[in-house]
Amino acid sequence: MKADISPIRISFCCTNTDPEPWLTGLRAALPLAEVSVWQPGVPAADYAVVWAPPQAFFDEQSQLKGVFNIGAGVDALMKLRLPPQAVVVRLEDAGMAVQMAEYVCQAVIRHFRDLNAYAEDARAGRWTFYKPRQRSDFPVGVMGLGVLGARVAQALQHFEFPVNGWSRSPKVLEGVHGFSGAAQFNDFLASSRMLVNLLPLTPDTTNILNRDTLGRLQPGGYVINVARGAHLVDDDLLALIHSGHLAGATLDVFRTEPLPPDHPFWQHPKVTITPHTSARTLRSESIAQIADKISAMQRGEPLSGIVNVGSGY
Amino acid sequence: MKADISPIRISFCCTNTDPEPWLTGLRAALPLAEVSVWQPGVPAADYAVVWAPPQAFFDEQSQLKGVFNIGAGVDALMKLRLPPQAVVVRLEDAGMAVQMAEYVCQAVIRHFRDLNAYAEDARAGRWTFYKPRQRSDFPVGVMGLGVLGARVAQALQHFEFPVNGWSRSPKVLEGVHGFSGAAQFNDFLASSRMLVNLLPLTPDTTNILNRDTLGRLQPGGYVINVARGAHLVDDDLLALIHSGHLAGATLDVFRTEPLPPDHPFWQHPKVTITPHTSARTLRSESIAQIADKISAMQRGEPLSGIVNVGSGY
Repeated sequence: MKADISPIRISFCCTNTDPEPWLTGLRAALPLAEVSVWQPGVPAADYAVVWAPPQAFFDEQSQLKGVFNIGAGVDALMKLRLPPQAVVVRLEDAGMAVQMAEYVCQAVIRHFRDLNAYAEDARAGRWTFYKPRQRSDFPVGVMGLGVLGARVAQALQHFEFPVNGWSRSPKVLEGVHGFSGAAQFNDFLASSRMLVNLLPLTPDTTNILNRDTLGRLQPGGYVINVARGAHLVDDDLLALIHSGHLAGATLDVFRTEPLPPDHPFWQHPKVTITPHTSARTLRSESIAQIADKISAMQRGEPLSGIVNVGSGY
Repeated sequence: MKADISPIRISFCCTNTDPEPWLTGLRAALPLAEVSVWQPGVPAADYAVVWAPPQAFFDEQSQLKGVFNIGAGVDALMKLRLPPQAVVVRLEDAGMAVQMAEYVCQAVIRHFRDLNAYAEDARAGRWTFYKPRQRSDFPVGVMGLGVLGARVAQALQHFEFPVNGWSRSPKVLEGVHGFSGAAQFNDFLASSRMLVNLLPLTPDTTNILNRDTLGRLQPGGYVINVARGAHLVDDDLLALIHSGHLAGATLDVFRTEPLPPDHPFWQHPKVTITPHTSARTLRSESIAQIADKISAMQRGEPLSGIVNVGSGY
């Protein structure tokens, strides 16, 4: 019953994030907790709310029970030495899944419906038609079928696209043609014309979008990367667009962010880029989820969203 | 049993349409019919497949039983004198509803998610973030709840937007806040921030999007017109964008098409235009639907999609 007599301590350590509204929100949601911004040397905390924290943060956390990552991907955390007793918890959905479905669907629709070409024509004052395409010729392959990938697959089906799914272990999603593991990866690629990457970034998935794999997509393939920049070998993508095998790409994530000013993606006519904005962390939804999970842990209840440190996601 | 001994005659009269693939398709679907392109003076037909035909076509059709319009809107037909015994049948869905849902959702998503601003930033080499918006602040109002409007409302709900619907007579659609008739029109407008027009064009709905009605939308309103250009008073839209009350518009239809080269919509930074391509007639789906309906009429069976000439849709 320690929680009732001495308050739990929550430490906030998030790179590139304004802490004040988070502290206010967490304090309102957990009035019995002491919530503060981490500074070197402050007392060890019970729980941590983090985004890309430094190793120094964890080196001081001897009594940490839970680490809450305010994003879906925990690849940055997995590179650090974490206190062995602490569980790592990812943000689950919290408003991100619908954002991801929106972003991916608009990218798929814009390519399928030639809307980028129509926009170019409008700028040039041209009233031109393109022949409507057959939806059956544009199967979409979704890599990664977690909360976000499953939501994206569902949204694509709402627009009647054939949807393939690929995941490490077999997953059954209604209406999705499922592939799994290394053995079925090539078949998955050959069955897909548009590719949506939502995999976690792990040593196994780094550089997974390369000349060999992207070359297996159906001719006129299109790549949508909304996971991590390190999944994609940039030069391989550009070479396959240049050769005509790929029609283009929509990229929200990059190996270096912000994307360096001299990177060819900036001005490439067949590459649409956005600044890592496909699914932003929504503060109030995230605070509510973290507060609920901290309360559950304090009561000793089971928790969803715990990261398997062995697999890295 | 006349249909069994003398073949039915189908006349094809579609402006701006290559007739050959339609004739081939209709002949394959209805092998007992005589299908031909209308020319002045050819024998009167039993059925007509039309798009924007001249009055002269109908003046020669003394025995026409059915007129099949290869589009969803029949406003062009309603301006003509039609043979009184002929029923007018519109194309129902036939692949158009999902296209309309795609087009409208991508327009809504692009505005809601600032994707046009991000595209502008990418062209300028800027890595900039915009604050995520609250979905609850962007209720979408759908005008017209026929096959296309209902499908659009369903798709918008899939992305968790609050959806209002307005139709002439009351309609109940799951999850849609319904308004109907002139009496509830102002309340519908005041409850909506983004407006999607899918009304039929009739004398009652011509110029329905004007300074008064669009001025009743919530501040920062956004207009998506995918019905007919004559629904919208162009100068009123531009004035409300200029005043700042409206944030912009996505327009697929225009009072004059092609849009005249000197029209201000072409280069307006807050107006996205496409050349009447939001829901294109898909030939094979349309031929299958028309063939089914002609067969049903020949068998004396009831038919869906018959236009009420009194109401004009």
